[in-house]
Amino acid sequence: MLKRVNHIAIAVPDLGEASEVYRALGVPISEPQVLPEHGVRVCFLEFANVKLELLEAIGDGSPIAKFLGRNPAGGVHHICYDVDDLVHVAATVKNAGVRLLGNEQPKIGAHGHPVLFAHPSDLSGVLTELRA
Amino acid sequence: MLKRVNHIAIAVPDLGEASEVYRALGVPISEPQVLPEHGVRVCFLEFANVKLELLEAIGDGSPIAKFLGRNPAGGVHHICYDVDDLVHVAATVKNAGVRLLGNEQPKIGAHGHPVLFAHPSDLSGVLTELRA
Repeated sequence: MLKRVNHIAIAVPDLGEASEVYRALGVPISEPQVLPEHGVRVCFLEFANVKLELLEAIGDGSPIAKFLGRNPAGGVHHICYDVDDLVHVAATVKNAGVRLLGNEQPKIGAHGHPVLFAHPSDLSGVLTELRA
Repeated sequence: MLKRVNHIAIAVPDLGEASEVYRALGVPISEPQVLPEHGVRVCFLEFANVKLELLEAIGDGSPIAKFLGRNPAGGVHHICYDVDDLVHVAATVKNAGVRLLGNEQPKIGAHGHPVLFAHPSDLSGVLTELRA
């Protein structure tokens, strides 16, 4: 069902500064990508087994602006899991008492895959992305 | 240097409830372990590529009690990375402007390995464990 962690997303106030620290620690880092339709600029930290995604807010309506308002130094914003079948997983998630966000329908996420988000309050405070 | 994410630790108010949700989502979960000397009870969620560690506070002086006070629903408490050489990494981390916690000397962590912790304010708000 939830088989693999696809990435751990960290909201950061300044993508350049955050990248520089991880680069100094020997972590391979992707070039920044601007995703205006998602209100973020991102870099990936490529660890051997999993990716970390650094997210910087762009524009006034960025979905991570509120999080950064509450956590000005940054912090873990969400964890994303790979799943095989989003419709089946959605039903299982709801049966487990976990609320889905939005209209509960998959939408295309920041990286071109269909995704759903589950409510952090129902998953130990962790905003959870499910990605097909 | 930082090569692999060893685990992502999530502080939870109730280990039984938190485990139950992940079990319902098909995630293999270890039996709970009580680590009284570290003030926690833990379960591991065994994903294909990385582990999540659920941490519940035990005792009054639990190191996660303050975090749970600020985040009553739970949340990501730290990310732990595997490193080859803790002394070398400690020097590199400090050169990169990242403060180490405590007396900057490795100590034996919850799972019997020498570990160091780096300051969340210097790493995008993420408390960071380095494990040899």
